[in-house]
Amino acid sequence: MSTTTSDVGVQVLERVRGALADASLDAVIATSREALIYTAGAVPPSLRTVRQRLAASIVPVSGETEAIVVSVDAQLMRERMWADRVTDYVEFEKHPMEVTADALRRQGLDGGRIGVELTALSVEAHEVLLRALPNAELVAADEFLSGLRVVKTPAEIDAIRRIGRAAQEIAATACRSVDAGATERELGNAISEAFAAAGGDELTMLVVGAGERSSHPNAPPTNRTLERGDVVRLDVIGTSAGYHCDVARTAVVGDPSDEVTKVYELLESVHERALAAVKPGAQSADVYRIYREAMEEAKLPPYHFVGHGLGITLHEEPFVHAKTSVALEPGMVLCIEPLTMLEGRFGVQIEDELVVTDDGCELITRASGLLPIGS
Amino acid sequence: MSTTTSDVGVQVLERVRGALADASLDAVIATSREALIYTAGAVPPSLRTVRQRLAASIVPVSGETEAIVVSVDAQLMRERMWADRVTDYVEFEKHPMEVTADALRRQGLDGGRIGVELTALSVEAHEVLLRALPNAELVAADEFLSGLRVVKTPAEIDAIRRIGRAAQEIAATACRSVDAGATERELGNAISEAFAAAGGDELTMLVVGAGERSSHPNAPPTNRTLERGDVVRLDVIGTSAGYHCDVARTAVVGDPSDEVTKVYELLESVHERALAAVKPGAQSADVYRIYREAMEEAKLPPYHFVGHGLGITLHEEPFVHAKTSVALEPGMVLCIEPLTMLEGRFGVQIEDELVVTDDGCELITRASGLLPIGS
Repeated sequence: MSTTTSDVGVQVLERVRGALADASLDAVIATSREALIYTAGAVPPSLRTVRQRLAASIVPVSGETEAIVVSVDAQLMRERMWADRVTDYVEFEKHPMEVTADALRRQGLDGGRIGVELTALSVEAHEVLLRALPNAELVAADEFLSGLRVVKTPAEIDAIRRIGRAAQEIAATACRSVDAGATERELGNAISEAFAAAGGDELTMLVVGAGERSSHPNAPPTNRTLERGDVVRLDVIGTSAGYHCDVARTAVVGDPSDEVTKVYELLESVHERALAAVKPGAQSADVYRIYREAMEEAKLPPYHFVGHGLGITLHEEPFVHAKTSVALEPGMVLCIEPLTMLEGRFGVQIEDELVVTDDGCELITRASGLLPIGS
Repeated sequence: MSTTTSDVGVQVLERVRGALADASLDAVIATSREALIYTAGAVPPSLRTVRQRLAASIVPVSGETEAIVVSVDAQLMRERMWADRVTDYVEFEKHPMEVTADALRRQGLDGGRIGVELTALSVEAHEVLLRALPNAELVAADEFLSGLRVVKTPAEIDAIRRIGRAAQEIAATACRSVDAGATERELGNAISEAFAAAGGDELTMLVVGAGERSSHPNAPPTNRTLERGDVVRLDVIGTSAGYHCDVARTAVVGDPSDEVTKVYELLESVHERALAAVKPGAQSADVYRIYREAMEEAKLPPYHFVGHGLGITLHEEPFVHAKTSVALEPGMVLCIEPLTMLEGRFGVQIEDELVVTDDGCELITRASGLLPIGS
């Protein structure tokens, strides 16, 4: 267990236990990827590759924390998880939710009020758990868990800052390392290698879209060649020690056209106005409104959202849109990402990460103009 | 849409529709990754990155097929999915299961008998769907869908064969491209690049474990250096056009020790005996028993399973273990993968892919001894 992971764990567990007491819950069973990482520090690789190999992390209001993982991942999870106990099950022998119920029973919690994730637990897994715990009261804990994650602990912010800054540097360096004639995939490979070297776990979604492909929302790198004058949109989305980075940049091969320069500068001014609106006490919907007005003044079509919380998941509260609103608080981490897509022609995006502070915000990353492709 | 994808789609849809009629189902709603790929040809990238962006693919027994995806992925999915119609929803405006219910209603199926995946659908999503379709009968279709996937269509076998053979070649070439002193990560990068160049979508789990790390079940590449005499275990697990490859090889840096040679040769003989047992009509549990007896004769500890079906998912029916048994049929695709782990010292694994044929099996890949590291 790394020191940083341990710091994250200590701070998070204290927060979860306090909230359990406040919510009159005896324990919470985390089963989603994000809640497993949040409450136990890691997620078994099998959860991604073999859907039936469910995992669970039990945090009781007091007493031992326990994680349930498939046997093939047990060794790795004993190294990476901070749960007091990691219990493994052999696939096909017993349902993971029965093993989870056994763990609760051992701690005398099988008659307790237990939070579960109804948006993550399948109907089938939930039924197995209900049958195995006939005396327990299983209640929805989805918002309980996601709500806890909105304001980050200092150790979480350190983890996000580290990989966010690395992503920003990697995007710029990778653009300089290729030239006209390279493919999107070669640029993507340069990013992937640097990301792994910087301690990244995986790029969960890498966007490298050149020319007309820069206007596709989620464009993975292809064999398309970068040509002079092409706009190249990059979005470096990945994780390190469980926490996400999400940094988008717009690059250009050679000199940008007047139109590209103009659109970029307009979007840059929109970005500045949205960033200036981020401070404690501000409503997230007001940040969106300011973005929207700035887009309208710039005569750019506003998008239905301009930002989102960032942490263990890529998109989490607070969402910066018109549909919901929360008051921003110190310790929230957000991405602000104005974009404009001229369908079939080119797309421009500027995305920075920030932390809300006591008197405004600290920019984790900071775009500085169109990135040059080639040295 | 590529020609191959289209071939896969035509064959699969015909099979799904026939089975719906046989099962007296009016439609099936696929929501798991694998069932989305199987019934619609692709899965929205967002499903991995943002959990609440659910997707669905509706296949009615007759009439239009329809996929429901989040707006941000709609453009890409209209290119990649073969559903007759791709309907998108804007996040936060309407629940994706309400949009799915609307689609069923448009085709007059809202009072029908509809299959859903209870192991994939969350409790919450299922409740939304139940409320939105008060007159429908929602029944578990998990085994219906996974059962259909067990015997592959010819176009599916072509897709699996192509990426499986590429993975075998990539593992051998990557081993020759590095030498003692390189890191696991460098060897891993060589595999990643070649995999992307071969048309791979993503390496869902790449194992590169050198020395004592070769005995860890799921060892991702790290900065550990490859030293003379090290055993290096590789497992190339990834997807191309939605179908998996899963090929494990054991390599060695320089000359293997007598012990490594002996263990490898013993395991090779076990592998041959297991492969020889694979033919139509054979019980999968008998293949496991033959493997187990061969391991015992070789004085190697048998593992609780020796193989699994391979297709859109990494591990699927037929599982080759003692717990369940199915009669093998032509068109089933399996991995046979004996392994032995000398904990903390070294691990050896040989994994090949095969297709059951009318009179035995066709080996898609074929291990030929310990792979050399370096040229």
